[in-house]
Order: sequence, then structure tokens, then C-alpha cells
Amino acid sequence: MLQCRNQLRIQWGDCDPAGIVYFPRYFEMFDNATIALLETFGLKKAELLRKYAIAGFPVVHTETDFRSACTFGDDVVIESGIEKCGSASFRIRHRMIKEDGSVAVECSETRVWVERDVSRPGGIKAVAIPEEIKAHFTK
Amino acid sequence: MLQCRNQLRIQWGDCDPAGIVYFPRYFEMFDNATIALLETFGLKKAELLRKYAIAGFPVVHTETDFRSACTFGDDVVIESGIEKCGSASFRIRHRMIKEDGSVAVECSETRVWVERDVSRPGGIKAVAIPEEIKAHFTK
Amino acid sequence: MLQCRNQLRIQWGDCDPAGIVYFPRYFEMFDNATIALLETFGLKKAELLRKYAIAGFPVVHTETDFRSACTFGDDVVIESGIEKCGSASFRIRHRMIKEDGSVAVECSETRVWVERDVSRPGGIKAVAIPEEIKAHFTK
Amino acid sequence: MLQCRNQLRIQWGDCDPAGIVYFPRYFEMFDNATIALLETFGLKKAELLRKYAIAGFPVVHTETDFRSACTFGDDVVIESGIEKCGSASFRIRHRMIKEDGSVAVECSETRVWVERDVSRPGGIKAVAIPEEIKAHFTK
Repeated sequence: MLQCRNQLRIQWGDCDPAGIVYFPRYFEMFDNATIALLETFGLKKAELLRKYAIAGFPVVHTETDFRSACTFGDDVVIESGIEKCGSASFRIRHRMIKEDGSVAVECSETRVWVERDVSRPGGIKAVAIPEEIKAHFTK
Repeated sequence: MLQCRNQLRIQWGDCDPAGIVYFPRYFEMFDNATIALLETFGLKKAELLRKYAIAGFPVVHTETDFRSACTFGDDVVIESGIEKCGSASFRIRHRMIKEDGSVAVECSETRVWVERDVSRPGGIKAVAIPEEIKAHFTK
Repeated sequence: MLQCRNQLRIQWGDCDPAGIVYFPRYFEMFDNATIALLETFGLKKAELLRKYAIAGFPVVHTETDFRSACTFGDDVVIESGIEKCGSASFRIRHRMIKEDGSVAVECSETRVWVERDVSRPGGIKAVAIPEEIKAHFTK
Repeated sequence: MLQCRNQLRIQWGDCDPAGIVYFPRYFEMFDNATIALLETFGLKKAELLRKYAIAGFPVVHTETDFRSACTFGDDVVIESGIEKCGSASFRIRHRMIKEDGSVAVECSETRVWVERDVSRPGGIKAVAIPEEIKAHFTK
């Protein structure tokens, strides 16, 4: 399932007064990792938005375990892969790995392919994932 | 279980190019709501850190459902309550309610009471929640 | 010049490992204060975007002094007012005041009224501020 | 004066509903660039904090021009250098350069070398920059 590895460094502004990563920041890192994962399939998010006239593929569910804290200056790797793909949704798993090889955070994200629903502000609605995209997500 | 309600407005900077809340931001809002919840028991986080010499009570697990998108200018309410309290951990449930009464986001957060572990940078370790704190969490 | 006062509390996630506000966060607070300031004139940003088909009024220049650090739990007030209004730009001054009355941060923001420039991604271009808006900004 | 170049990609979460970078995010990028700049001198922030028992070198003044908007997916370069070094403060200039060579943002940051002032929460006070650090900043 491992399809993509991204290295990154924990920045000063990622951390809170306890000196550890402020947990909402992990979700920013995983969101970036999802976008990078799709790019390894040749699927650039900016192009997907234009080509398919979608609003994106927002997260509708997550289950995340924070096993050990990361701190300023840590060099970590995020391993990401697609676990499952349905008709309108897909599930991604991210693991943040520390330099000693331990898993700091493990995150499962379910995302939905959505179009804009112009009937209300910020409105979005799920639509079927195009077959050529599914082909990448299930290979 | 409902113990605290916080009203807030979705800000411009909370939202992404799709015009909806960037999902890591919800976790910031829920983190603030947890701190506000404890304050309704008379437990101010800044004082807890000093009095008990703890590093905090970081999230170790979350399960979150994003049911409908919030957008810039939305006035929402976060309802928060403590669902469960163990020896070193406790679980909080947050519901973000929109003006039409629908639940936009539902989040369960498991948090652990931790001391600093000075043997390594950013090190923390779980310790027992003091009895007088548990009394508030289980009443 | 003082036209608006907003009270807010410094949150845990606003602060860095030194225990003080991570300075980019002040700009989020001031951005929110600008939007609140316009609302005191009856100008809601969401409605302005629709009514005038603008992309917004982004900051093009800032000069900011950080005089003393704010920390987690501080209750502060942001005083905001419009200092100057030109044909396409306007200047706002924000002062963040601590409970002891001292000025923690003083920020001048120059903003430009912009339309979307569809000839390039993320393109925007300055346009004249409508007279009825200027009337509010110069009164 | 150019001493350091950092390449980065504008992420989805860096951008606002207008589809352009939310301006407080630029200051996060510049803060990271300052830390990277010091590292090119062999000065790792985490080690500086320990070795000199400082709280950091927070920004006390900035003047920043936002000349053109960056958008999701842009690959930009931040060029950073130290312009000036006094007894307790130093000034850094950052330029964010787009792929077409234009300057999107130009930022001058004045920072102060500070120790913790334990007499009050979040307290910090300026102290002299050590000579061996100044030697790097003025070479």
C-alpha cells in the first residue's frame, strides 16, 4: 500500500508551549502529503480542480493515533498510501515516522470527491470519482 | 454529558480556496473548546500546568466526522462534554452545530495527562490524573 | 480614529515553544479585526465580495512593532481604525492592548480593493473603491 | 547580502477563499527561512536555545511589501540575508521570488536576542548577542 514518502522538518511554528507539535498541525502535514501522493500518480490537485470542475476531495472522516510527540527540529518522514477506493470516496493512510524508525502518528483519512453545490454558500456535494482516477487509486 | 457551549464565527483565514473551513482548523477550534470546558470546572489550563507541574493533556486519539462544510461568516456553536475518564486519560466529545441546528462536525478526543520526561527533547510521559481533577471529570 | 474594539483571549495554539504568541498569529488576529471593523460600518465581507464582485482587499504593505510578548491565557483588546483612504487603497491601524493598558503590538496595514484578474491563476488587480464604501472609510 | 535560498511550494492550506496565500502564512515561511539561514552558518536554533539559555530571537519590527499574490501550487524561492547586526538586535531581509523571477513579497524583520525573564509569565528581555554569533552575522 505504501505509495509515497515525504520528508519534512518540524518547524518552530508547528510547536506549542509544551515544545511539541500542536496536533492540528499534523493534519496540515497529512493534507499536504495527500496532495503529494496524488501527484505521484500524475494527478496535480490544481489541474484536477480545473479538469473535472470539482471543489476538491475534502476529508469526511478521520481516525488518528498520536503515539509519541514530535518536537522542533525533528526530521520525519510521512509514508502515505491509498487503502481503499469506493464510488465517491477513498481512504488514505499516513504514518509519520521518526528518525529512530518509530511511528509518531498514524492517520486514516476518508475523503469524498465533491462538486460545488451552488444552491448555498460553501455548498458541496459528493459525486462519482471518474474511472480514470479510480484506476490510479486501485492499482 | 453536555457541559459547555462556545459560540464562534468562522473567520476568513479558517477557510481554504474551496471556500470552506480547512479541516485542520476544526481541531484548533476543538482544542480551544476543551480548554474552555475545563475552565467551566474552575480549571484554568495555565494554572493546571503550574500547580501540577504537567506538560499538558495532549490528544492521543481522535475520531472525527465532518458531516457538512462550514464557510466564512458562519456562526457556529461547539458543544463539549467529558464522556469518560480513566486513570491517566479522558475522552471529550465536541459537536459543532450550525445555525440551522445541524451537526457540521463531531469529534471525539482522547487526551492523556502528561508530565515532562526530561530524558529527551520534547519528551512527555503519562501520569495519573489527580483525584480532585477526576472528581470534576466524572461528576 | 478609534472605531472598533475587539476583545480576545490568547489561545494555546497561538503560542510557540518560548511560551509567547508565534508572531504570524498576530496578523491573523489583525485580519479578523479588520473584518470586524468593516462590520461596524454595516459592511460584511461576505456581502461585499458578492455585491461588488471583488476578490477582497488584501494587505499590500504592513509596518508592525511587537513591543512586548503576549502569552497563553492573556485577555487582550485590539483597537482598530481607518487612518487613511485613497482611490483604491486604505490604511488601517491596529493596537493590541494588554490588561495593564500597555500596547503589546502596533500594526499598520495598507490594503487594496481588488477584482479577480481571470487571465492568470490567483490573479487579482486593484480597482477603485466604490464611493459609498469610501464614505464609510473617511467619515 | 544574499546568504541563503530556500525553495518551497505553496500549499492548499496556505491559501484563502480568494485562492491566494493568506498573508499571515508568509510570515511563517519567513520565520522558517530565518531559521534555515542561521543553519547555513552552522547555528541550529535548537542548539542555540540550549547553549546560550536564550528564549529565542523574536521579531520586534517588520516592514513587508506584498507585491503580487502567490497561489496554490506555485513553486517559489525565498532569498534571505542578514542586513545589519547591532548589539542585541539584527535585521534580516527576505525576498520571495516567483518562477518568472518577479518578487512577490519583500520582508524586513528586526529580531532581538532574548533571555527569559522569569519575573512574569511569558516574560523575555533583550540581552547582548554573543560575539561569536555576531561574527557570523556581520561577515
